[in-house]
Amino acid sequence: MAKRILIIGLGLLGGSLGLALQEAGAGEVHGLDADPAAMAEALALGLVQGPPPASGPPYDVIVLAMPPGAAGAVAASLGDRLGPHTLLTDVCSVKASVIQGVRGALGPIPGFLPAHPMAGSHLQGPQAARTDLFRSCRVLLTPLPETSPAALDAGRALWEGLGATTHAMEPRDHDHTLALLSHLPHLLAYTLALEARNSQADAALAGPAFGDMTRLALCPPDLWADILLENRAAVLDRLGTYRASLDELASLLAAGDRPGLEARLSAARTWKNREAR
Amino acid sequence: MAKRILIIGLGLLGGSLGLALQEAGAGEVHGLDADPAAMAEALALGLVQGPPPASGPPYDVIVLAMPPGAAGAVAASLGDRLGPHTLLTDVCSVKASVIQGVRGALGPIPGFLPAHPMAGSHLQGPQAARTDLFRSCRVLLTPLPETSPAALDAGRALWEGLGATTHAMEPRDHDHTLALLSHLPHLLAYTLALEARNSQADAALAGPAFGDMTRLALCPPDLWADILLENRAAVLDRLGTYRASLDELASLLAAGDRPGLEARLSAARTWKNREAR
Repeated sequence: MAKRILIIGLGLLGGSLGLALQEAGAGEVHGLDADPAAMAEALALGLVQGPPPASGPPYDVIVLAMPPGAAGAVAASLGDRLGPHTLLTDVCSVKASVIQGVRGALGPIPGFLPAHPMAGSHLQGPQAARTDLFRSCRVLLTPLPETSPAALDAGRALWEGLGATTHAMEPRDHDHTLALLSHLPHLLAYTLALEARNSQADAALAGPAFGDMTRLALCPPDLWADILLENRAAVLDRLGTYRASLDELASLLAAGDRPGLEARLSAARTWKNREAR
Repeated sequence: MAKRILIIGLGLLGGSLGLALQEAGAGEVHGLDADPAAMAEALALGLVQGPPPASGPPYDVIVLAMPPGAAGAVAASLGDRLGPHTLLTDVCSVKASVIQGVRGALGPIPGFLPAHPMAGSHLQGPQAARTDLFRSCRVLLTPLPETSPAALDAGRALWEGLGATTHAMEPRDHDHTLALLSHLPHLLAYTLALEARNSQADAALAGPAFGDMTRLALCPPDLWADILLENRAAVLDRLGTYRASLDELASLLAAGDRPGLEARLSAARTWKNREAR
């Protein structure tokens, strides 16, 4: 386990990482949050051992754990906390924009390994942090042409040391796949909640299905506006094909085409049953 | 608790009702399922005490627990199991089409009280039945002009005796509200699973958000094709306004309008936080 670690952003993901690293026996786990109240709360909860000291040797690992649109500016502010052997990584849901931000701030550096742990919940902030958030979690790594083998090894060791499994892929594939598997589902859930609000539906009449399909609307709007905007091309592309499928089902429904409708629902169910948890 | 009860359709809802009624001390709980395998399984599991005898006095309660499109034909087949004092009720997710079917078969009868318990899961069949499915569940009752006060009282007593709460509303309001709170969410989930299937997405990369937003695609396709078709006008209406909201969010995203996008997501979150479980 790495010796000296700095986590920037102490919400659900950054805070959970601080707890998990301390439990796993990391030497020093420091942290920062741009929001003074969150910083005080994270310290009170012991998510990290303290803020970074004014001076000291470079960190072994620095983790960017803020919304993706802010990663570049934070990277630019690291100064000599970032050394030639520091692993610089992140936990953001979008990779291309984080890579662009970090490269814009620091140029292509061998220590940078973008990462995305597939963990989370609609809960947010330091008080949502959990020691076991990354246990059995899959972490997507998107090594760059400039990423050194040492940084890739250090990134794998960091996550696997917390009980996660790692999976390497291209940043572009990551963003296009996640647009479908995560970003579009969030957009659909927000839209359903918005629709219920606009029509003044009596939510007390809803059953568990509606609760499941709107739970993601509890996610932080500032974070999710940022994620959707930072990956907008891929999200709009996925939304286009989703709408085409929805339109097809609507046409079958309008036409009263029971065999056609049931065939589509069956295909969806077969896929879900076989492929998806 | 009613003395003699007949449940037709012994899947998740009908089977759970059989278990709950027996636990609550009903006198005789008989059942039928059109599928011989399901019938045998229901009997083996003790969901009901047996099939209805060839002859006997009319039942106190008859519950229709099959897909809504089949309710009329089943009502027509009840013969002298249905007496002048029998409460005839159902558990279907759509009311107008069930009412039309039952009225078409039997005319307007004082014993008919349409009902819809807001319980369920993607599991199906007799083996999914659970004694506690209706405990703390809300049951929507849609009394008709011809429904007698005695039938309404008997329906309330039936459900409340199982630990549920009842709520009376107009059939038309029920179908329009449920189109938004249940039928549209199912259609959205099926469509998302279909989209992932069509694009050959690697579901192993998905996190919990995708699992939540596609869980309803595990629901039985024949039942859900029936529900969507039987309530198609209301579902298409809700789908139209949902699509308009989705298009608005897509436009904000395409335009890079962060304040506009975040305002919509915040409104959705505020509503969900306050209104919905």
